[in-house]
Amino acid sequence: MAATRDASSGTSAGNRCSLSLAPVSMSKHTLFLLRHGEGAWNKENRFCSWVDQRLSEAGVKEAQDCGRLLKEHGHRVDVVFTSILSRSVQTAWLVMEAMGLEWVPVFKSWRLNERHYGALIGLNRAEMALNHGEERVKVWRRSYDVTPPPIDESHPYFAEIYGDRRYLTCDIPKEELPRAESLKEVLDRLLPYWNDVIVPEMKRGKTVLISAHGNSCRALLKHLEGISDADIADVTLPTGVPVLLELDDSMRPLKQRQLLGDPAKIQAAIKKVEDQGKATVNN
Amino acid sequence: MAATRDASSGTSAGNRCSLSLAPVSMSKHTLFLLRHGEGAWNKENRFCSWVDQRLSEAGVKEAQDCGRLLKEHGHRVDVVFTSILSRSVQTAWLVMEAMGLEWVPVFKSWRLNERHYGALIGLNRAEMALNHGEERVKVWRRSYDVTPPPIDESHPYFAEIYGDRRYLTCDIPKEELPRAESLKEVLDRLLPYWNDVIVPEMKRGKTVLISAHGNSCRALLKHLEGISDADIADVTLPTGVPVLLELDDSMRPLKQRQLLGDPAKIQAAIKKVEDQGKATVNN
Repeated sequence: MAATRDASSGTSAGNRCSLSLAPVSMSKHTLFLLRHGEGAWNKENRFCSWVDQRLSEAGVKEAQDCGRLLKEHGHRVDVVFTSILSRSVQTAWLVMEAMGLEWVPVFKSWRLNERHYGALIGLNRAEMALNHGEERVKVWRRSYDVTPPPIDESHPYFAEIYGDRRYLTCDIPKEELPRAESLKEVLDRLLPYWNDVIVPEMKRGKTVLISAHGNSCRALLKHLEGISDADIADVTLPTGVPVLLELDDSMRPLKQRQLLGDPAKIQAAIKKVEDQGKATVNN
Repeated sequence: MAATRDASSGTSAGNRCSLSLAPVSMSKHTLFLLRHGEGAWNKENRFCSWVDQRLSEAGVKEAQDCGRLLKEHGHRVDVVFTSILSRSVQTAWLVMEAMGLEWVPVFKSWRLNERHYGALIGLNRAEMALNHGEERVKVWRRSYDVTPPPIDESHPYFAEIYGDRRYLTCDIPKEELPRAESLKEVLDRLLPYWNDVIVPEMKRGKTVLISAHGNSCRALLKHLEGISDADIADVTLPTGVPVLLELDDSMRPLKQRQLLGDPAKIQAAIKKVEDQGKATVNN
């Protein structure tokens, strides 16, 4: 009698039976991941990272096109998350405007910021090679868990970043904010926000759009799809192309991720980003 | 002995003395009230109310000018509140963009929506006079507590308003949302949001911008400044002009409200709004 009542042990036939017959939750949770479009510094091929740059004209158009695409395909968005860097907020606003969804709630967190590139911030290819050597820079860019040298107070962008009022509004003291990050460290600071803030919204049935950056999107994708430390190096997300993920109740993919839009355009966008990487590091 | 301990009575000399010597809280709380700029329907002089219209080109410029003005004068904004009508959100975004404050949190609520004009929604001057008589319309517009006839399902904009997904996200069921409102009823639904959501932010020392509508701003101003039911009829807020209010800890004005910007421009903006009213109702 005691054994059959012991539901928590799950050992009695009666309990196993009732467990397997219990209605299985087959909820499908929809997530759009969006890497913002071209920023002012992209053309110059400089690491923008935590420096607050606006979108270029091309970046504005990419965001508007993305919003129009989502609308045309009848997609819904219930809540939007962005970093606290203007280019990701601007991208979200343009998408929402194109979808006629200005009323949708938007939440912003530094935890969705671009990877902090430390001392490499603001450098272009020639400066990076000169300061650090090309091989070393390649390791910082491609490896999952090697952190570049930290930014220090003598860096030309230190004051602009850490003197900005937005970094007094974070959920940790300004002194504890990163001074440089590996991709792994991006994931480490992003995950609490994902688990504690975004996932609960998805579990309430909300369709979520995350408007963020190349590396914050890649870090989250690595986590969701279980991509290995080595393989994530080869994952390139095109700018301005929404990535549709359908997740189960454990926030694991129910199927392959989908890049939405015209396949030729998407390929061109991926190639553009990859060429940028090559021009920066390998050539 | 009992009497001198009775601080709440305030009758003993000892208590009066200790009260006047107690440190007086002299906090100053800063609030910007902003009535959004011209919308697409303004030119046609139709009641827009809960119909979701975007800003006109002139309205976009008004919002940008407002943001530039606030920035030039060194004003800070820490948190923004809007209605869930696109024109108030769009205004907030344009102000924030002009100030370089894309990262600032924005909260949206139907409780800041424009007054619900019921059956008058979408009508122009000729239609209003024809349907309801000019004198009657004048009463609905000018009186504080007379509610216009409610919108019903046969109204050409009923489905557009109540079929919109945004009204499923409110803090009350869709069925309980208003079908028409007097200015008093606007204040009644706005006050809980002001008291429970906005005031706590101000008490935390945040400078607040409310980007809303002619009548939601007027209702809040009536409450804050203690304007009488009769006098509020004569208070006109120009569009796109930030109203600066400095409030004490009880959220009462420490001094006269200030309309920010060039006085000649402000006068022209007030005249424009007043003329619109005359053209609609009195002529």
